[in-house]
Amino acid sequence: MRTPDGVSESDFRKALEEFANIVGSQWVFTSPEAVDLYRDVYSIYRNEPEEPVIPAAIAPYTAEEVQAVVKVANRYRIPLYPISTGKNLGYGGPSPVYSGSLVLDLKRMDRILNVDVQSATVLVEPGVSFYQLYEYFEENNIPLTMDIPDPAWGSLVGHALDRGLAHTYSQYGRDRWSSRCGMEVVLPTGELIRTGTGAAENTAIWQDHQYGMGPQIDGIFAQSNYGVVTKMGFWLRPAHEGFRRGRVHFANFDDIHKMLELDTRLQNMEVYNGMANLGTPLYGSMMPGMHEKPVTDPEHLRLLEIKDSKRPDPGPLARYGKENRIPFWVLDLKYHGPNSITKAQWEYTRDLFSREVPGCWFTEYEPLTFPLDKATMDTLNEPGRVEKVHLGIPTLARFASVMRSELNPNPDVGHLWFAPMVPKNGTEVLKAQEVLQRETDRLGVKLPFPYYAQMPLFWYPRVGIFLAGWQVSPDPKVNQRTREQYIELTQICADLGWTEYRAPAPLHKDIIGMANGFNDSAMMKFRNTLKDAIDPNGIISAGRYDVWPKHLREERES
Amino acid sequence: MRTPDGVSESDFRKALEEFANIVGSQWVFTSPEAVDLYRDVYSIYRNEPEEPVIPAAIAPYTAEEVQAVVKVANRYRIPLYPISTGKNLGYGGPSPVYSGSLVLDLKRMDRILNVDVQSATVLVEPGVSFYQLYEYFEENNIPLTMDIPDPAWGSLVGHALDRGLAHTYSQYGRDRWSSRCGMEVVLPTGELIRTGTGAAENTAIWQDHQYGMGPQIDGIFAQSNYGVVTKMGFWLRPAHEGFRRGRVHFANFDDIHKMLELDTRLQNMEVYNGMANLGTPLYGSMMPGMHEKPVTDPEHLRLLEIKDSKRPDPGPLARYGKENRIPFWVLDLKYHGPNSITKAQWEYTRDLFSREVPGCWFTEYEPLTFPLDKATMDTLNEPGRVEKVHLGIPTLARFASVMRSELNPNPDVGHLWFAPMVPKNGTEVLKAQEVLQRETDRLGVKLPFPYYAQMPLFWYPRVGIFLAGWQVSPDPKVNQRTREQYIELTQICADLGWTEYRAPAPLHKDIIGMANGFNDSAMMKFRNTLKDAIDPNGIISAGRYDVWPKHLREERES
Repeated sequence: MRTPDGVSESDFRKALEEFANIVGSQWVFTSPEAVDLYRDVYSIYRNEPEEPVIPAAIAPYTAEEVQAVVKVANRYRIPLYPISTGKNLGYGGPSPVYSGSLVLDLKRMDRILNVDVQSATVLVEPGVSFYQLYEYFEENNIPLTMDIPDPAWGSLVGHALDRGLAHTYSQYGRDRWSSRCGMEVVLPTGELIRTGTGAAENTAIWQDHQYGMGPQIDGIFAQSNYGVVTKMGFWLRPAHEGFRRGRVHFANFDDIHKMLELDTRLQNMEVYNGMANLGTPLYGSMMPGMHEKPVTDPEHLRLLEIKDSKRPDPGPLARYGKENRIPFWVLDLKYHGPNSITKAQWEYTRDLFSREVPGCWFTEYEPLTFPLDKATMDTLNEPGRVEKVHLGIPTLARFASVMRSELNPNPDVGHLWFAPMVPKNGTEVLKAQEVLQRETDRLGVKLPFPYYAQMPLFWYPRVGIFLAGWQVSPDPKVNQRTREQYIELTQICADLGWTEYRAPAPLHKDIIGMANGFNDSAMMKFRNTLKDAIDPNGIISAGRYDVWPKHLREERES
Repeated sequence: MRTPDGVSESDFRKALEEFANIVGSQWVFTSPEAVDLYRDVYSIYRNEPEEPVIPAAIAPYTAEEVQAVVKVANRYRIPLYPISTGKNLGYGGPSPVYSGSLVLDLKRMDRILNVDVQSATVLVEPGVSFYQLYEYFEENNIPLTMDIPDPAWGSLVGHALDRGLAHTYSQYGRDRWSSRCGMEVVLPTGELIRTGTGAAENTAIWQDHQYGMGPQIDGIFAQSNYGVVTKMGFWLRPAHEGFRRGRVHFANFDDIHKMLELDTRLQNMEVYNGMANLGTPLYGSMMPGMHEKPVTDPEHLRLLEIKDSKRPDPGPLARYGKENRIPFWVLDLKYHGPNSITKAQWEYTRDLFSREVPGCWFTEYEPLTFPLDKATMDTLNEPGRVEKVHLGIPTLARFASVMRSELNPNPDVGHLWFAPMVPKNGTEVLKAQEVLQRETDRLGVKLPFPYYAQMPLFWYPRVGIFLAGWQVSPDPKVNQRTREQYIELTQICADLGWTEYRAPAPLHKDIIGMANGFNDSAMMKFRNTLKDAIDPNGIISAGRYDVWPKHLREERES
């Protein structure tokens, strides 16, 4: 029996018995088959000695059980790795960072604890998935909608804590993390706290207001290892009434500057609503990857050829584009709201671009009215149609199209997300295309599209995220090279000031420091100070986001 | 010479000398006249033994000087109380919580370090005031605008850290605290960190994106005493293009329920933009306080009479109102944006209320177009006209009208803000009126308006804040009674789940615990754990938000 480092077999058996007494023996998993399910199926260390070993998993049913488990773990110094539902593909999945950790699986805690239609808020446990909440709304005719990622099988709480992005829009342009409202957290000592106004003995506004009186500590539990979140509130939106889509096409290479400048202005003026999401707006480019139809004309293909990592000459491309009515850039805009309002918003958008960018042209789409009729519903997700995720309807469509299609010739292996953030302006976006193309070419990174054919896939209000899935191989040698490439490219981006938005857990130890090097890594030291105070025995998620408990820091340094 | 507790006079003199070496002797204030300026002019302990003594004040010019000062303070165990510009009237002003603390006055750090027009962001130091930033934009033709409090002489950074509210609107309905982006903090040990992507050695997006990689620690520096913030970024908005105002009048008492339900829905749909602010929308009531013209008709006055703290019978009032075209409730709505869009938004609003609330009626106003012509500008703030703060133009008008008018018969004394938050729905708002009226009557609290004549003056998206200024007296006996009343009423509200949004510093020790009592005050204990780890010598702002360093906790408990 593999035991966590420093824990004797007899102590470990005793601990497992105590865990079983708390959660029920059927919810303590130790068999190889059961524990194997908690391996990261996309692991970049698959079948290498560094792939984390998981001695057991525990699935509590209540916050009280979590507290009791954590207290036992403290007594025996057993490292725990809490997960919500265990998705997080491409970012480490359910697997711990520190080998020998027990997975604390919260999937059984899947209660929808409160829904307030008037305020458009919910309170949920970590096991609640997007699908589950959507179905609950549908079955109970609850007129609320939410921001949806794809794949949508994950946990709202887990997604928020990892500060994940989604596709629909967010309340007031907020991403999921910043639309959370109120948390319950089991601290590494087993103590239970509630944040925001939930810190009061009585609260009438736990999901209504993010702040209580005094320091706001919520943030320290995101992308971290300072506690186990057992409840979280979210701000949602009233059900859709209308939805409008419009496209702006830009003829010239240099139009990217005005495109991004005006888009930022319009978003900051709230002329479009929502943001933080892929496709709201969807930026395109005339490169093959983003085209709705594959490029087949040999002349076009020749013009798109990349030699020596250099950008294809934009002049001839633009001329070809003008002759064939193919835009150089595309802005695909989405407007959520009553159709009478989004009509005025679209017209304002169109007039502004017409005035400021000579030669741009527009495509207008028939707006949608809700509830959708069956015919419309059935054609969503078809080529050229509105995607379900853009309307808050959960699917696996994008996941399938990217991960289970010709874009991924080996669908039984996984991917690793690489996602630097760049400032939302033309100069920096073009520079990022060039740097990323040159450096991935130099390093030999294989990607389905060249970077010149890519625009940031996700946009926060003021930054774009160049998201790319790097293939994981069944061959450890290939994976070792991939890791080296990943680390090197992350450093190159870090040197240019482009922090990654989120990082695969197996590489936290290698790259988190790159985003936290200012003033002799003062932030890393501060996080260690917090870790030692909050988790003195170093029980929770050692190594996650490269925060290690004291005894393991000393070991690593020696 | 008064020295901080536990610090010998010779040590104190040595420390002052070292402070003078760091900041220059002219910036270390010890004379009674100079130090007197740091007393809270609105102190509820004025001229009582409990009024904090301030042995000295230090005004550094740079973050490096702040670091050096903090290091010296650690060596001599000298308590420091950092302030930004020292306003915060009604909440404790510049005065420390713990008597004997030295004020660390950051007003000389008033640099506007960066303005990015395309992203609509700024980076400023704590000494930068709203007036200063507004004038900087005006003088340099910078097309940005911001959310403005009144009085506007305060610091953006201080306002954000106290999570203060303002009057205009916020980016995507965000209040100032949640539209911050990136901070620089001198920790109590003298170490300097930057948050968000500023934690990286190089960042291209410090003001563009709120999160770096790993735990987000910004929140712990708000309403707290864990560090000295020396720089802060903010998200602003593009300059105004249009502004529209519309009023909805409600004839019946029971209309309050629909009014608040539909208003919440419209805001959550983003049909109005901005929120978090008084007057956006301004809720009225037919009670005298909120009327634009004083009520003079004896019949009307008779109907408004309050007996035994009971709500005046709404039936006859509504009948009187209908006969005289006086509404029971008013919703004063403000729309920021291009006039073509806000026209559609207003029409949608009007149609919805018409459909859902029989008998309501509307007032439309001519929309404003920017830049404003002189004639329009000159008539702003006149009765019935748009207020400057609603357009992002800083003033002292509201401050003057409330604090320096017939509403305040003793303008040379101050006020103490009392501000419980209640859920934004009719039932709770009516209940709050009744409870607050009954309890202030019972306690003998004197307020300019009865609570029946008040609606929450500020609104966050899902809660309303019943804000009232309680008079401070020159007579310590009266103030002692006021404190007792304040504490008792805060407890009554806490028992009903209505947390205060912010609290006067002199009363932190009495009331912060009321908002943090859940699970045997687990949050208070957690904050102490953080305090001891982050500020082991207990140097910074002891007692602020009732977080005390270990040695003072032990003293207080013994």
